[in-house]
Amino acid sequence: MIIIGEKINATLAGIKSIVQKQDSAGLLDLAKIQAAAGADFIDVNVGTGLGSREDEIVSMQWAVETIQEEVDIPLCIDSADPEVLEAGLRARNGRPSLTNSTKAEEKNLAQVVPLADRYQTPIVGLAMDETGIPKTVEDRLRACEDIASACEKYGMPIENVYFDPLVLPVSTNINQGLVTLYTIAGIKKRFPGARIVMGLSNVSYGLPGRAGLNAAFLHMAIYTGLDAAIMDPLNQTLMNAVKAAEVLVGKDRHCRRYTRAFRGS
Amino acid sequence: MIIIGEKINATLAGIKSIVQKQDSAGLLDLAKIQAAAGADFIDVNVGTGLGSREDEIVSMQWAVETIQEEVDIPLCIDSADPEVLEAGLRARNGRPSLTNSTKAEEKNLAQVVPLADRYQTPIVGLAMDETGIPKTVEDRLRACEDIASACEKYGMPIENVYFDPLVLPVSTNINQGLVTLYTIAGIKKRFPGARIVMGLSNVSYGLPGRAGLNAAFLHMAIYTGLDAAIMDPLNQTLMNAVKAAEVLVGKDRHCRRYTRAFRGS
Repeated sequence: MIIIGEKINATLAGIKSIVQKQDSAGLLDLAKIQAAAGADFIDVNVGTGLGSREDEIVSMQWAVETIQEEVDIPLCIDSADPEVLEAGLRARNGRPSLTNSTKAEEKNLAQVVPLADRYQTPIVGLAMDETGIPKTVEDRLRACEDIASACEKYGMPIENVYFDPLVLPVSTNINQGLVTLYTIAGIKKRFPGARIVMGLSNVSYGLPGRAGLNAAFLHMAIYTGLDAAIMDPLNQTLMNAVKAAEVLVGKDRHCRRYTRAFRGS
Repeated sequence: MIIIGEKINATLAGIKSIVQKQDSAGLLDLAKIQAAAGADFIDVNVGTGLGSREDEIVSMQWAVETIQEEVDIPLCIDSADPEVLEAGLRARNGRPSLTNSTKAEEKNLAQVVPLADRYQTPIVGLAMDETGIPKTVEDRLRACEDIASACEKYGMPIENVYFDPLVLPVSTNINQGLVTLYTIAGIKKRFPGARIVMGLSNVSYGLPGRAGLNAAFLHMAIYTGLDAAIMDPLNQTLMNAVKAAEVLVGKDRHCRRYTRAFRGS
């Protein structure tokens, strides 16, 4: 499993001011603690929702340059705005990155897929279109088909695509857990060479015991074929959930990573 | 999910002496606490591994009569010996029971299936034969086919069969988690009218953090189609795992059972 640390996200309380004040020490601390906790990528989302696009471009450039000065870890450049993505990829200076994200919308695809191709990074494709997140498995898979077609058109191999099946809260619609899981299964079947990435926490929105519910969803998603999770690597419940799932689906030979995680605890 | 309380099992430390001494108060306490904790069935296994078959027949009769005097809960009459099963079913006096178990072995099937049919109880069929527990999904499914054929022959409808896919420790063979899960999926596909029951704890044998690993396996198994678990209903980690899984697979409308379980905690 690939762990993408989610903590550098300017929509979160506490992170917004780090971005607004260009607090380099605060930003680096967030990168370092996630890397130390076992993150494989650090997500960088500087969208405070308050400034202009120009502000966001400046913030993204600052954030990427600041992190890579001191932390040698792949970055997941995260924005819905292709110009902000490009600012991050340009600042990244050729080191391993992930372009996060495009959706199944013609203009968005025409901007983001060639961009990811030019900077030679894999791309995250969200199973949604211009009308929002589809409620059904079929419609989410149709969005993935559209993304795959655009990738083919622009010469991006399917092996470089991370599809995100997306998650809506089960508290609003009890079927949404299965919709996401069946979308994962459908993507695996239709595009066996592609990878699947997901943020978890939306599934438990509005319910108590969220970490445990997210962990349960992670177990099911890994069994179904999830390759990467955008999550908090400091959350021990979730990190243990990854290790338990990998033992159970046969991806931890001799249970070494699992037993190492428990040693001394 | 159907919870079958596993605590009355004379192979467990502490229970052996309750059975040997015919300690009715101790036995009833085990039945009552499991019923109060939410068990739907109470498993009754009086095989101490020390006495004769005659001892075991006497113990089974005593245990069933003692429990049903004070606790009105379905019993899961559990023995590998058809005569012990019959002693339990006879003592049971027509109240709801489950006959646990037969395996895919001609003589065993010829004794246990007609017995379950005569006492009108569903039957647990273990996915194993006279040579032991098969290592592969194909061989476990073949054992289930043999059980299904015998049930058809003796007039037992498939809806009355609970198949047990069986679980071997992942610490000995890392693929065994998937073998069990794929066996569940195979049974669901081949016999959609049958039910699936499983004991969990074997999966984590020899590893640390067993309750969490068992819970992770339960999440995956419920997603794959498990209908019933033989487990400890006093283990809050496992009981919460059942409730979380039911929310995520859409079996808890409006998340009511889940939120009720968290109320006050």
